[in-house]
Amino acid sequence: MPSIKDVANLAGVAVGTVSRVINNSGAVKPATRRKVEEAIQELNYIPNEIARNFKMRRSKMVALLLPSIWHPFFSELAYYIEDELDREGFKLMLCNSGGKPEKELYYLDMLQQNKVAGIVGITYNDIEDDVSNDIPIVSIDRHFSKKITCVTSDNYEGGRLALRELVKAGARKPAFLGSVTSVFSETMNRREGFIREAKAMGVDYVVYEKPDPVIDDDAYFGEFLDQHREVDGIFAITDMFAAKYIERAGRRGIRVPEDVKVIGYDGIQDHPYFHPLLSTIRQPVEEMARTSIRLLYQKMEGQTLEREVYRLPVMFRQGETT
Amino acid sequence: MPSIKDVANLAGVAVGTVSRVINNSGAVKPATRRKVEEAIQELNYIPNEIARNFKMRRSKMVALLLPSIWHPFFSELAYYIEDELDREGFKLMLCNSGGKPEKELYYLDMLQQNKVAGIVGITYNDIEDDVSNDIPIVSIDRHFSKKITCVTSDNYEGGRLALRELVKAGARKPAFLGSVTSVFSETMNRREGFIREAKAMGVDYVVYEKPDPVIDDDAYFGEFLDQHREVDGIFAITDMFAAKYIERAGRRGIRVPEDVKVIGYDGIQDHPYFHPLLSTIRQPVEEMARTSIRLLYQKMEGQTLEREVYRLPVMFRQGETT
Repeated sequence: MPSIKDVANLAGVAVGTVSRVINNSGAVKPATRRKVEEAIQELNYIPNEIARNFKMRRSKMVALLLPSIWHPFFSELAYYIEDELDREGFKLMLCNSGGKPEKELYYLDMLQQNKVAGIVGITYNDIEDDVSNDIPIVSIDRHFSKKITCVTSDNYEGGRLALRELVKAGARKPAFLGSVTSVFSETMNRREGFIREAKAMGVDYVVYEKPDPVIDDDAYFGEFLDQHREVDGIFAITDMFAAKYIERAGRRGIRVPEDVKVIGYDGIQDHPYFHPLLSTIRQPVEEMARTSIRLLYQKMEGQTLEREVYRLPVMFRQGETT
Repeated sequence: MPSIKDVANLAGVAVGTVSRVINNSGAVKPATRRKVEEAIQELNYIPNEIARNFKMRRSKMVALLLPSIWHPFFSELAYYIEDELDREGFKLMLCNSGGKPEKELYYLDMLQQNKVAGIVGITYNDIEDDVSNDIPIVSIDRHFSKKITCVTSDNYEGGRLALRELVKAGARKPAFLGSVTSVFSETMNRREGFIREAKAMGVDYVVYEKPDPVIDDDAYFGEFLDQHREVDGIFAITDMFAAKYIERAGRRGIRVPEDVKVIGYDGIQDHPYFHPLLSTIRQPVEEMARTSIRLLYQKMEGQTLEREVYRLPVMFRQGETT
């Protein structure tokens, strides 16, 4: 096999120059780069790094598997994940699963062939058996039973906080509005915190849930509004649920926050230009993103992590709906 | 160098099985896959595809270079780009430039080393000299002078349409609100179309612009509102500009659409839950994304494209602000 020296000789440059071209470090004139690249091509030279990467079955690519980059929560998360990866020279491969299990499996299989160095996964499907124990993977929100590190916001505290804020705003019969996934996700703790705090405070409450994904909004909200006219406070499992509730309630003449106080979860609105500005439990998106990547690096280096689940603190952000 | 047959012999499987493992096509039992992978590792076998890809200096990775995935227009675009790439087995590498020229150059240089098969670029900086003529690149909105295919919405027609809709809604003194980038971008045609149509219809108009990026919103909108009290219609260069205008105008007691009609550009709101729902010139985001990728494939295959600029039709979407 040709060596880096052969390439340097053919291109008529120093070995260091070839190295800089290959590793993209330091300045190389375009004309020189071209000469080096032609020599590489002519000799079919395979740089050490690529050969070594292949041998070690590692790349500098990290896959982000998420339902849809189009969702504002995920696009904010992806923004910070890419930024954190870039600091260490890693690249981000974006994988929209559309929430479909078969597409999640397809991407996971790719990882298991080690075509990517690691994966950050956001999945709500039952893919338990297809996730190997010893590959670098960090999960967001989803709590696998195997030892896959999970980064999430403190959903339980978020639920408690939401209940307290609803009561503080005057609600006497608050309801939790959610959906139930087939596998356990940390997001379910939003409900648990809500219930626990309502009980602790002696507040009468309602839990309203349907199987995820909720496709028929008319049925979901229509039924709720028919059955629970006494409800005067809503803690919705996401901001989108909160926004949809407000829109449906408005059609029936229910005013927010006059008649019903509403709190969402996520904090996807980062501009004050569109209304209502939701009162919400804000996830620490940037910190979740950066923490995920730092933990992933530790896993890539073979370190054992202290915890299985990293729960990052949330805060209540006052909007116009409480 | 070891051959695929050596791997098959060592693993005790057929050559076809090794091939399926390498190419991830067809079903392979986990145990078999492991045996094959161990054999590959032991022999340091480099599959043909990887060697060939390297020789041809091609990967199955396409880079999407954009200012920020966090922006709703770009995240919608990225969603469809990834979907279109996936149909042909290509992966998407996400590159947030933050709008910074040095980061755009860094990614472009990476492309020129052919670590990615192609690039879709959204850039508003002066990086003209660093973009090579003969690499597969499709630009969105930005019109390079070199023969780089540009996919954009029909900004000129969009500007004309906005003016007509403002007049139809009753505006008699419409203004264009924009910002000026240092290099020519197709988005500037929004203003040209607006002006041309105003002239054609004999309508008195205002053009208000500041250098891009507009950082001081107070100064930008404050000055405009001070100087142009007679304006009763706004065509803003983006939906975000429109939303900001409405918020600032509201602080001065100006009501939209009662006092001033407002039309934006983009169509980033895809839910009816947040208000105001902007009246806007909707870009055909999905079609722009898919067209970009199809053109990129043609370029990768060495085809010469018919046109330099592909302008896709826009439509007016009525909201609550006209």
